[in-house]
Amino acid sequence: MPDQTAADPGFVERVEASFAAQSVMGLIGAKLGSITAGRVEILLPYRADLCQQNGFLHAGIVTTIADSAAGYAAFTLFTADEAVLTSEFGLHLLSPAAGPRFRAVGKVLKPGRRLVIAETEVFAERAEGQVLIAKLIATLVRLPKQA
Amino acid sequence: MPDQTAADPGFVERVEASFAAQSVMGLIGAKLGSITAGRVEILLPYRADLCQQNGFLHAGIVTTIADSAAGYAAFTLFTADEAVLTSEFGLHLLSPAAGPRFRAVGKVLKPGRRLVIAETEVFAERAEGQVLIAKLIATLVRLPKQA
Amino acid sequence: MPDQTAADPGFVERVEASFAAQSVMGLIGAKLGSITAGRVEILLPYRADLCQQNGFLHAGIVTTIADSAAGYAAFTLFTADEAVLTSEFGLHLLSPAAGPRFRAVGKVLKPGRRLVIAETEVFAERAEGQVLIAKLIATLVRLPKQA
Amino acid sequence: MPDQTAADPGFVERVEASFAAQSVMGLIGAKLGSITAGRVEILLPYRADLCQQNGFLHAGIVTTIADSAAGYAAFTLFTADEAVLTSEFGLHLLSPAAGPRFRAVGKVLKPGRRLVIAETEVFAERAEGQVLIAKLIATLVRLPKQA
Repeated sequence: MPDQTAADPGFVERVEASFAAQSVMGLIGAKLGSITAGRVEILLPYRADLCQQNGFLHAGIVTTIADSAAGYAAFTLFTADEAVLTSEFGLHLLSPAAGPRFRAVGKVLKPGRRLVIAETEVFAERAEGQVLIAKLIATLVRLPKQA
Repeated sequence: MPDQTAADPGFVERVEASFAAQSVMGLIGAKLGSITAGRVEILLPYRADLCQQNGFLHAGIVTTIADSAAGYAAFTLFTADEAVLTSEFGLHLLSPAAGPRFRAVGKVLKPGRRLVIAETEVFAERAEGQVLIAKLIATLVRLPKQA
Repeated sequence: MPDQTAADPGFVERVEASFAAQSVMGLIGAKLGSITAGRVEILLPYRADLCQQNGFLHAGIVTTIADSAAGYAAFTLFTADEAVLTSEFGLHLLSPAAGPRFRAVGKVLKPGRRLVIAETEVFAERAEGQVLIAKLIATLVRLPKQA
Repeated sequence: MPDQTAADPGFVERVEASFAAQSVMGLIGAKLGSITAGRVEILLPYRADLCQQNGFLHAGIVTTIADSAAGYAAFTLFTADEAVLTSEFGLHLLSPAAGPRFRAVGKVLKPGRRLVIAETEVFAERAEGQVLIAKLIATLVRLPKQA
């Protein structure tokens, strides 16, 4: 992965402000973790009301934190005049989404001028250690911010 | 698309029971729509607490209903002794997820013995008509039900 | 799918010229089929030197015609000053790639200003009729043509 | 990535025999590189007849070596009685496929009993060093070998 350089020194505040405006993160109880240039973490404690029929986190909720982690990883590299939009992603589920807490780690793979490709690994943080439960790769679009 | 035949006449009840056990559907306010062999609909009214930073439905919530619609479309074709599990999916976003209600229509493309490929189209139901906002293709695994 | 309108009346010639410049199409023996606004077909006769270990067409060769069909479907809608580039795709294999001839049918799903989403269905044309063997969804980028 | 263990000590010979039976590899001039448990490399020298309209390797040819590298990475972990089949993959293109030689490195992410998830990184080997040009993630099916 290439070294990433932030174009705007205020990128942490920009990520925090945008994340605070994602109402769904409040609904599900997700929080931001560490934010560095080209890399963003989102943390999600397990809750019984986020699940599919077997009591595991629903794949759509795994996707919710994985997509935002990828999007904000891209966003850290943008100028203050740019916005980010997801165009597409693929998600592979590798292990059951079971555990007391989940950590999505988004990283930029390719910071293009129009498109950014980023990937997110989602881990279940269990007593015995962390387990990779899912991997997402996304295409993010770099857009001029709406006035 | 091939004509689909249900292996178990009780498939509607099985889908309803499994959906009722997906706690996340209650959290976000999603309901089942029509259920036929190889095709399942899920309906989701817009809510301000399901959104990303621009007030559109978060792509992870779009995925939540799209993945379940694909999974239950596959599940309609299973015997009463089989369970369904998502292995992977790809989602392409085609238009902003704006509108008063969303409809995910999942259909089986290929009902294999081990794997089922299904796709879901997600529509925004607006005053002027429905708009295709996203398309998902998923790989579902056919499993023996846990005793 | 929305009705597609070509921006440039010379789109058939532009597709033919670009296809003729794709040297790999000559190598594998692929030809263009019908070309209309937003929809392009590519035909590929079976050859024993295009196969994987079981004598079926290799998935990469299926992808070769599917990706080009999607890309040229997008290209039909561009101006004469624009070029097309694939950014990503997903391919699902639905049936073994067996048969005397294959037909990839690419169609535009969403003709955006920067990105075009297109999908391709690949059929095996067999004596008993055509069988859908694969489905691809791709993200194509609309670019200014290099001088 | 978990440590991978081969179930069959003859896995290198099995990969070599299967690769030799993939006729398309001879057509395009691809060769096997290193083969270890859970990891397989395929090498492809540039040729002018493998290209798209701009003289870069066609994405379908990139896919051909990337898919086989992922499939054989999975295959190294199988018993001598098992065969491998690709079910789906997604490919993201990260940089133009330009350079004198390409190296696809497939690695197993999750060796399941029915399904194996593997990913391949494809590098262009240039005078100034190697550049990551594409990333593929695939679902491979573990099958009993046909008698």
